Amino acid sequence: MSTPIVSIIMGSTSDLPVMSQAAEFLDNLSIPYEITVVSAHRTPDRMFTFAKEAEGRGIKVIIAGAGGAAHLPGMVASLTSLPVIGVPIKSSNSIDGWDSVLSILQMPNGIPVATVALNAAKNAGMLATEILAISDQEIKSKYKAVREKQTQKVLTQVETLKNQKEI
Amino acid sequence: MSTPIVSIIMGSTSDLPVMSQAAEFLDNLSIPYEITVVSAHRTPDRMFTFAKEAEGRGIKVIIAGAGGAAHLPGMVASLTSLPVIGVPIKSSNSIDGWDSVLSILQMPNGIPVATVALNAAKNAGMLATEILAISDQEIKSKYKAVREKQTQKVLTQVETLKNQKEI
Amino acid sequence: MSTPIVSIIMGSTSDLPVMSQAAEFLDNLSIPYEITVVSAHRTPDRMFTFAKEAEGRGIKVIIAGAGGAAHLPGMVASLTSLPVIGVPIKSSNSIDGWDSVLSILQMPNGIPVATVALNAAKNAGMLATEILAISDQEIKSKYKAVREKQTQKVLTQVETLKNQKEI
Amino acid sequence: MSTPIVSIIMGSTSDLPVMSQAAEFLDNLSIPYEITVVSAHRTPDRMFTFAKEAEGRGIKVIIAGAGGAAHLPGMVASLTSLPVIGVPIKSSNSIDGWDSVLSILQMPNGIPVATVALNAAKNAGMLATEILAISDQEIKSKYKAVREKQTQKVLTQVETLKNQKEI
Amino acid sequence: MSTPIVSIIMGSTSDLPVMSQAAEFLDNLSIPYEITVVSAHRTPDRMFTFAKEAEGRGIKVIIAGAGGAAHLPGMVASLTSLPVIGVPIKSSNSIDGWDSVLSILQMPNGIPVATVALNAAKNAGMLATEILAISDQEIKSKYKAVREKQTQKVLTQVETLKNQKEI
Amino acid sequence: MSTPIVSIIMGSTSDLPVMSQAAEFLDNLSIPYEITVVSAHRTPDRMFTFAKEAEGRGIKVIIAGAGGAAHLPGMVASLTSLPVIGVPIKSSNSIDGWDSVLSILQMPNGIPVATVALNAAKNAGMLATEILAISDQEIKSKYKAVREKQTQKVLTQVETLKNQKEI
Amino acid sequence: MSTPIVSIIMGSTSDLPVMSQAAEFLDNLSIPYEITVVSAHRTPDRMFTFAKEAEGRGIKVIIAGAGGAAHLPGMVASLTSLPVIGVPIKSSNSIDGWDSVLSILQMPNGIPVATVALNAAKNAGMLATEILAISDQEIKSKYKAVREKQTQKVLTQVETLKNQKEI
Amino acid sequence: MSTPIVSIIMGSTSDLPVMSQAAEFLDNLSIPYEITVVSAHRTPDRMFTFAKEAEGRGIKVIIAGAGGAAHLPGMVASLTSLPVIGVPIKSSNSIDGWDSVLSILQMPNGIPVATVALNAAKNAGMLATEILAISDQEIKSKYKAVREKQTQKVLTQVETLKNQKEI
Repeated sequence: MSTPIVSIIMGSTSDLPVMSQAAEFLDNLSIPYEITVVSAHRTPDRMFTFAKEAEGRGIKVIIAGAGGAAHLPGMVASLTSLPVIGVPIKSSNSIDGWDSVLSILQMPNGIPVATVALNAAKNAGMLATEILAISDQEIKSKYKAVREKQTQKVLTQVETLKNQKEI
Repeated sequence: MSTPIVSIIMGSTSDLPVMSQAAEFLDNLSIPYEITVVSAHRTPDRMFTFAKEAEGRGIKVIIAGAGGAAHLPGMVASLTSLPVIGVPIKSSNSIDGWDSVLSILQMPNGIPVATVALNAAKNAGMLATEILAISDQEIKSKYKAVREKQTQKVLTQVETLKNQKEI
Repeated sequence: MSTPIVSIIMGSTSDLPVMSQAAEFLDNLSIPYEITVVSAHRTPDRMFTFAKEAEGRGIKVIIAGAGGAAHLPGMVASLTSLPVIGVPIKSSNSIDGWDSVLSILQMPNGIPVATVALNAAKNAGMLATEILAISDQEIKSKYKAVREKQTQKVLTQVETLKNQKEI
Repeated sequence: MSTPIVSIIMGSTSDLPVMSQAAEFLDNLSIPYEITVVSAHRTPDRMFTFAKEAEGRGIKVIIAGAGGAAHLPGMVASLTSLPVIGVPIKSSNSIDGWDSVLSILQMPNGIPVATVALNAAKNAGMLATEILAISDQEIKSKYKAVREKQTQKVLTQVETLKNQKEI
Repeated sequence: MSTPIVSIIMGSTSDLPVMSQAAEFLDNLSIPYEITVVSAHRTPDRMFTFAKEAEGRGIKVIIAGAGGAAHLPGMVASLTSLPVIGVPIKSSNSIDGWDSVLSILQMPNGIPVATVALNAAKNAGMLATEILAISDQEIKSKYKAVREKQTQKVLTQVETLKNQKEI
Repeated sequence: MSTPIVSIIMGSTSDLPVMSQAAEFLDNLSIPYEITVVSAHRTPDRMFTFAKEAEGRGIKVIIAGAGGAAHLPGMVASLTSLPVIGVPIKSSNSIDGWDSVLSILQMPNGIPVATVALNAAKNAGMLATEILAISDQEIKSKYKAVREKQTQKVLTQVETLKNQKEI
Repeated sequence: MSTPIVSIIMGSTSDLPVMSQAAEFLDNLSIPYEITVVSAHRTPDRMFTFAKEAEGRGIKVIIAGAGGAAHLPGMVASLTSLPVIGVPIKSSNSIDGWDSVLSILQMPNGIPVATVALNAAKNAGMLATEILAISDQEIKSKYKAVREKQTQKVLTQVETLKNQKEI
Repeated sequence: MSTPIVSIIMGSTSDLPVMSQAAEFLDNLSIPYEITVVSAHRTPDRMFTFAKEAEGRGIKVIIAGAGGAAHLPGMVASLTSLPVIGVPIKSSNSIDGWDSVLSILQMPNGIPVATVALNAAKNAGMLATEILAISDQEIKSKYKAVREKQTQKVLTQVETLKNQKEI
């Protein structure tokens, strides 16, 4: 595989079912990525090193998912000037996801995090793609095709529902 | 001014005090932008035309701010493949900002919006800059300088507080 | 079937189990309706055409259901002068339905949406009926009969409970 | 004045500043209306009589505003088959308006209330107009003109903002 | 059975599993009660008659349970001068019980409702007992015995836990 | 003054502006009461003694107001078999009153507290009156007169509003 | 076993599955503790005695868990000058845990409670250990080892995930 | 001043009015402390150094205050084995303080933070004192005196209120 340009990180392997949806999206578009575990709270040193070295390793966009008091996206954002996309995860013992959402979204002015919806790792993959597409026509074309395809999928639903009612 | 590459839009001129903070940030970095009013609800045709033509006009990132049942960022995102940054605005009659936050953040998989904190238009400007900086070394350098400067500002606070206590 | 006068639309076929309750109610009163999928985010062009042409096609009331950052009811309302009834749907990954409720209910002054309770598609069908009944005595009579019938159903519960206790 | 066809009711004269916005909108379109105080809790008998007699008096749409544990819209809806539009009001001692919103919106299936946004009495007036316009071409024309006018108002904002920036 | 002095009412038989806990408590203390269905929304006339006649029939305390936009306790309170105890019920489609709680609790000054916790019908039965006990020494004695018994039950838990640890 | 039969307690004198509304209501009906400060957290011993001795001193109903993590009503209820009415108070640093409401309302089964709306001390006074009126015809008559008077006050508002519109 | 220095208390044995996680953590570090049931509401006298005598019996830290209107941690804190750690528990009929969290966390100034996350009894055990470790080098060493071990556990996850991807 | 044993840190000097209440409390008990600005987001390196060196410098307890997406307390806790007390601060643009509360409180198991109420820096100072008092009899005595004094203050309020009523 080529050198990764997107890095997908998460606080724990228990977040993998959600976060792998970002990986899957990038895979489909042949965008090289890496996926690993970086815990803000249990491996702060690893997080520091990861965040400070990401740009130097050729990473262009970071996708970070976390649940509960989710500090990973914001802390990584504070240690790099790369765009960081935050994915709030509704973990067990989360208070309905509100804790994850607010602790990722409500960053103070000075350190931005691009937050997507609760558990919306697929959208994080899509947003990373949109960002890369600004300066990469090939990715842009592939992305437009994906978007067109999902439009067609809805139009097919329209036809199916129509036919069901007519029978 | 050169052709804008960032477009800052908002639902109403009443959102200008918040949204002009994004403009100000881009101004300081000499990133060309445009700022205008596009109402999803009161000028839907204008929104459609705007969103469909933005990429063709050379826009690379869109920043959209709205309050209440805030549909502007998500609808613009559905009509373009450019990255769209959403700024939830706490307008009068908003229910403490929750309506703006949730109607921008909770986009379904398929159409991503990069949401920043409530009223955090400055962070929207910074995020747009980070996105552009991926493929523009000059912007990257300027952005890193800004980030370094705000770190220094905190360190100055540290010294000031120390001196106050010693006196 | 006669030309539909109520149009029931939803963002995805996954909303069908909820939204078909509106259809069922109209069916029982022999009010002609159509039911289809219109996604604000994945088929914005279809939504524009749908909303602008609805009145011309003879539609008198639109019922629109959507979940999460639910933009369909409000956007359709912005493109037509027909009354639009919004049904917030508690979809998976919704934050307990709050996102759907607030992004449909909290429309700014200028573009009204008649919002009903979470998942209350039956009430949407009833509200559409009440609106049509203003100028249609036959519908009015049928509707009053339905309302009377549900009152009787409660009174039967009263008797059943009384008897259970006496035995 | 002609016989009213819209009835605007509210729980207390303290709700008048909000609810008079509905009256004002109807006034501008020369739609005959009445406006009065009906308290579900302090004048339940009056509410019963009002709700049961409204249709007979020629009323076609009822707009009911209330704050806190707001029972007026739902109770009136239970006593009439006319469409009832509910306006949640953020009164003093309300818990940020949540109580008003939920106690009006969350009606059980069987008795619909068309709920608008917190304090959005103007939208209630507009929704009543849309409902009447279904069977009244004159009202329809006037309403479309109002909607067109508010679109133009935004387009004027667009121009003003453009000129400010150019100077 | 003797003439009931407590009346337990609920909006629907679906509330019976919760509300029968109040009945069971009163049963254990041999306090005569009635239990029936009164729907504020589907049988408003029955509710009016019920509430106005309750005192005359010898009822001393009313316990009213309802879910969603729960208007039953507050409306009954507006029609009687008897103390009304409200039990918020977490029904299906309720927004986590918040709607029931707020639409019962947040009554305006002038019409009090004694609200207990979500689904806490047993506590409603206990509160009714406390109220009756003010002027009935026999009920007071029985109630004190119940309270003492539940204290003993905890003390037994203490012993059991102690023994488990020692083994 | 005669021996008090209602005891109004609060966590701090800062709650006096709210809680004195309960006192005022009782004063108007010549119901003897006492009003004092009992802090669950800062004077737990006083609270224990107060709660255990209240019944012996002739108190029949206790009204307890508190803000934030409001433990006073529930703890007093655990120490007496008298009915306890809880008044949630929106103190400074309260999270919009939610903390006071939930920590008073959500008592476990076994120890009931009759909770009224946020800051609704007047309703607490009215509820205490309703409870006493069960076994005191004089109080009952006075209370019915108060209720009738507030109904008349609304009807006067109705007339005033009517006249304003006619002029 | 040696004399306990940590006391783990809970409102009911139904809280044992959560609270035993605190016990387990202390067990692993051989810190002597006791675990028992103390109900603020059903055994207030026991709670008073417990809280007042804890320090005299050699207890140094108290961990108190409770759900719903959770008064146990705050009331114990008001009766002792030992540090009290509060564990909010998401019990059945809790409103999503918000009631437990707010009634433990929002203590007024003057009586502190050290609150941990919803159901986070393990963290309560760890916090008690950190507090004891200030003046006990042996506990400090053991605690640092535990913390190091959990860091290693994450690093193992990192390796496992890497290997899975490479195969 | 002697070597500090408590370290009070905050994200910005704008948090000083709240956080100085902790300092003031420690001052009154002559407990040596330091107070400074450490921003998790704008000075992450300083935060790392601070947290890792605190124990070595003789610090025994850390009090950390922050608003919005408040990562400072949790991140410091992840970098030290000292007890960390978190103070959620209701900053401007905070969503009513919920963001600060949840992002400090909802720490995952493994890294505890002792959270106090919103803006309750005084309680943070008191909790730090309780922790130190475990192994310092002098601090314990002083702390008990403070607690006794605040009890007396309430009892004085009791007397004052009694006298006001008697006059």
